[in-house]
Amino acid sequence: MEKQEIIGKEFRCLDKGFVRLVDLMGNDSSIVQSARVSYGKGTKTISEDNSLIRYLMRHRHTSPFEMVEYKFHIRLPIFVARQWIRHRTANVNEYSGRYSIIPDEFYLPNPEIVRKQSKTNKQGRSDELIDATLANEFISDIKATQELLYEKYNNYLRQDIARELARINLPLSTYTEWYWKIDLHNLFHFLELRLHPTAQYEIREYAKIIANIVKQTCPMAYQAFEDYRLNAINFSAIELKILKEMLKADPLSPEQMVNFGLSKREIEEFITKIHKINNL
Amino acid sequence: MEKQEIIGKEFRCLDKGFVRLVDLMGNDSSIVQSARVSYGKGTKTISEDNSLIRYLMRHRHTSPFEMVEYKFHIRLPIFVARQWIRHRTANVNEYSGRYSIIPDEFYLPNPEIVRKQSKTNKQGRSDELIDATLANEFISDIKATQELLYEKYNNYLRQDIARELARINLPLSTYTEWYWKIDLHNLFHFLELRLHPTAQYEIREYAKIIANIVKQTCPMAYQAFEDYRLNAINFSAIELKILKEMLKADPLSPEQMVNFGLSKREIEEFITKIHKINNL
Amino acid sequence: MEKQEIIGKEFRCLDKGFVRLVDLMGNDSSIVQSARVSYGKGTKTISEDNSLIRYLMRHRHTSPFEMVEYKFHIRLPIFVARQWIRHRTANVNEYSGRYSIIPDEFYLPNPEIVRKQSKTNKQGRSDELIDATLANEFISDIKATQELLYEKYNNYLRQDIARELARINLPLSTYTEWYWKIDLHNLFHFLELRLHPTAQYEIREYAKIIANIVKQTCPMAYQAFEDYRLNAINFSAIELKILKEMLKADPLSPEQMVNFGLSKREIEEFITKIHKINNL
Amino acid sequence: MEKQEIIGKEFRCLDKGFVRLVDLMGNDSSIVQSARVSYGKGTKTISEDNSLIRYLMRHRHTSPFEMVEYKFHIRLPIFVARQWIRHRTANVNEYSGRYSIIPDEFYLPNPEIVRKQSKTNKQGRSDELIDATLANEFISDIKATQELLYEKYNNYLRQDIARELARINLPLSTYTEWYWKIDLHNLFHFLELRLHPTAQYEIREYAKIIANIVKQTCPMAYQAFEDYRLNAINFSAIELKILKEMLKADPLSPEQMVNFGLSKREIEEFITKIHKINNL
Repeated sequence: MEKQEIIGKEFRCLDKGFVRLVDLMGNDSSIVQSARVSYGKGTKTISEDNSLIRYLMRHRHTSPFEMVEYKFHIRLPIFVARQWIRHRTANVNEYSGRYSIIPDEFYLPNPEIVRKQSKTNKQGRSDELIDATLANEFISDIKATQELLYEKYNNYLRQDIARELARINLPLSTYTEWYWKIDLHNLFHFLELRLHPTAQYEIREYAKIIANIVKQTCPMAYQAFEDYRLNAINFSAIELKILKEMLKADPLSPEQMVNFGLSKREIEEFITKIHKINNL
Repeated sequence: MEKQEIIGKEFRCLDKGFVRLVDLMGNDSSIVQSARVSYGKGTKTISEDNSLIRYLMRHRHTSPFEMVEYKFHIRLPIFVARQWIRHRTANVNEYSGRYSIIPDEFYLPNPEIVRKQSKTNKQGRSDELIDATLANEFISDIKATQELLYEKYNNYLRQDIARELARINLPLSTYTEWYWKIDLHNLFHFLELRLHPTAQYEIREYAKIIANIVKQTCPMAYQAFEDYRLNAINFSAIELKILKEMLKADPLSPEQMVNFGLSKREIEEFITKIHKINNL
Repeated sequence: MEKQEIIGKEFRCLDKGFVRLVDLMGNDSSIVQSARVSYGKGTKTISEDNSLIRYLMRHRHTSPFEMVEYKFHIRLPIFVARQWIRHRTANVNEYSGRYSIIPDEFYLPNPEIVRKQSKTNKQGRSDELIDATLANEFISDIKATQELLYEKYNNYLRQDIARELARINLPLSTYTEWYWKIDLHNLFHFLELRLHPTAQYEIREYAKIIANIVKQTCPMAYQAFEDYRLNAINFSAIELKILKEMLKADPLSPEQMVNFGLSKREIEEFITKIHKINNL
Repeated sequence: MEKQEIIGKEFRCLDKGFVRLVDLMGNDSSIVQSARVSYGKGTKTISEDNSLIRYLMRHRHTSPFEMVEYKFHIRLPIFVARQWIRHRTANVNEYSGRYSIIPDEFYLPNPEIVRKQSKTNKQGRSDELIDATLANEFISDIKATQELLYEKYNNYLRQDIARELARINLPLSTYTEWYWKIDLHNLFHFLELRLHPTAQYEIREYAKIIANIVKQTCPMAYQAFEDYRLNAINFSAIELKILKEMLKADPLSPEQMVNFGLSKREIEEFITKIHKINNL
């Protein structure tokens, strides 16, 4: 898709959110152009743009990727916004609940993503579905509560209580909006963390849409990002010793791995990496 | 107060929040020490630490102030945290509602700070007190709602719904905690914005406590900050033309100015400013 | 001048340097657009773009200015580059003397800017002209030395000594090149410091060209920057006490102030400042 | 070594440079302490500090490492300083050649590190030694030139030419000094890039000393950095497909690898990785 076609287009996300590319400075060629400033006359042999972009990504020469800049308009629930804002190397203009009346829009999860607390990953939800009745009850209750809270908010405003105070009991599921501007290097970092399976489902949905926009506007850089970062695997110094043994012969058993100094948790992580390789 | 006495001390803020200085790197002397690296042998005449600090502040030589680093442990309501985090040049570790159960602590405003929406300042509350009965009703309602929301949260957790989902209807008044590390230059910038009368009352309360901690640990730098930034007034190009009309024919003599506490160098700078106005 | 006319145009600077605007994201309207996201429906009364931009500048609401992004291609002497790079909130791709052969281009000052060391300002050159013969001798000597040093550099390269070593005796007057990308808020900060009379002459020359490019591409924002920052004067707490003594008994009336070009809102703000002074 | 023993100690580097740890905020425990704020009550099972630090490093949970702050005093040649300053997330106060007279100290390379231009790596010097006579001639010439340039500098100063101009022909081998303050996360990033074999020899010497200081003051974090980052290997998506084949059987030949889509250069890089593994 051309830049002109994608700018201004609203990509829906979650139940009431969206991502809209407002403006874009640069593309794959801008990355090459600024890299060539660094290499000067010395780059004659790295002639092809795609190779150069892949070389830069592979060797973490990050500054040419900083020369591309994306500006998005995003509507997102506050609990997602709170994770998002932790990426500091970006510019933000958020809707202000002090200046303006917060609109009646709340995030309501889809029943199929209501999950149990994960047992293995303290941070997230498990793959285990919650009982369907329970999930529906949860959603109804969430919805009824949101309506109640907005009614109260409205009441406070009618009583002329300052907006900045009236809003303090609005829930984290309230939608907010912002303009968010970030360079491609930092955007890749955001995507790497927020496309990761351990990221919360809701922010991952936004990351997917943004990844798709980047894929369409900087296809070479995005492909390099996928190959060298997103789908790459990093092996630690100890894991490499085990890999060495495995390159020669049959895979080692977990029992044998213990001797290399991996903790129980790391052995699990290592086996996952090898599985990932074997399933390629 | 000595650094040793103030580190670890918990300063209460709002109803259930606090600010605690966890660690501190440097003091007034560190500012001077790093400034002298820049000036090398050239600083012999700027002998006095206090003058040098005041000179640096006055002329916005900011990097020496960056050489002092504060680390705080802070408990604060989420709506305050959301304003706070907009200061990007700081390091943060926040309590995670995905990993851990959020404790039953909510911000309940004091009746006397429940105010009407400001008419002149769209952003804030007015000085106008709300009717006392109404204020008390508001607070009771806020409190009852917080209890209801926490009960629901607890129910969701009992049903083993993932913590990251169970929390989405908790209100913006929920307390969170973080470690926050920032250098003195950026901390002054935070204080300038958050001590300002148009900042929301709640974050101003935190700013006041932090200002007091800085005052006790870097007294010279804090005094310079007050004199040259916090209590200074900036006149625009147009305002200066009006000011010109408002100045008396006979300015004060340098001798008279000494009594106001300006150094010799500052008197010269002041006279230059007045000349600049008179020549508009 | 239109964006299309200015992009790609090479503005010469010093004897062999230049500034070229490579790309530009946004303009005055983008500032307004992102500010309106923050204020939401609350901004209906601040209708005019120019007033809004001036309001934002005056009250240091900096984030909307961050939504405009400039990318420059610049050729500059290394000693200027070393001052420039201290502005960290920018993206840079510099020509690499490790990859590529450094071209034979050195900065040679113009005789009329060869000045004596300042007596009052330890940091800079004085207004005092150096003896013309001496100035010309200085320049001839600088030139001859540059030629000698480049000849040596060439010799080292011919002997196949690694480029990264061969260059270590090239002088600080050697020209380098870079791509430099920065948002408008940080660019204004750069301009404020580098247009200042105490900045070194050579970097000021670059700052002037950049200021001119900003003036043509974001005229409203630039005008506001001039009025509220560049040509504004800041009075310290102590200076304000002296100013109080210097103010005439009868201030101008609001009616009189209108003629100076202050808006209604600014007149109120100005009167507040004067009250603040008179109440010291 | 204890923090008290290492602070203030001057570690010599290159011929006339040094690294001196001026101050240090935090240690391994501070990393754990701030991580536990994030995990709150949820961390009971991750009881051991070392495991937690290794977990954080492995999963790139970077913010706890940002809670440790190092302040160094460093003397280094200007061409090294120019590479160094590209790490923007740090605070710097550099000796000013505008304020002060630059001392007579220049970097003179050791004969055994004078190397030829690399053929394979455009960026650096090769392992190939230059002819000993040539190396010594190079060094004598560098030295004589430095003396000449300093003499000229001195002459200009004697003629009262402004310091900021007199210095413009001083060479890139001139030593400068700065205070440099950085958090541990960003310091690890610096070390990863500057300990890398493709970094210029001279900056690597500084990186080694700093690595050693970190090793002594945050031993757990440093060990984790070595295991999971410095000595880890990252395999791209394509490389993993090859690795899969190699886990089963005999290593593939470079000819076979071509079919997987690796470029010639990437095949070389991949073989290097496998060699590195086999040489463990």
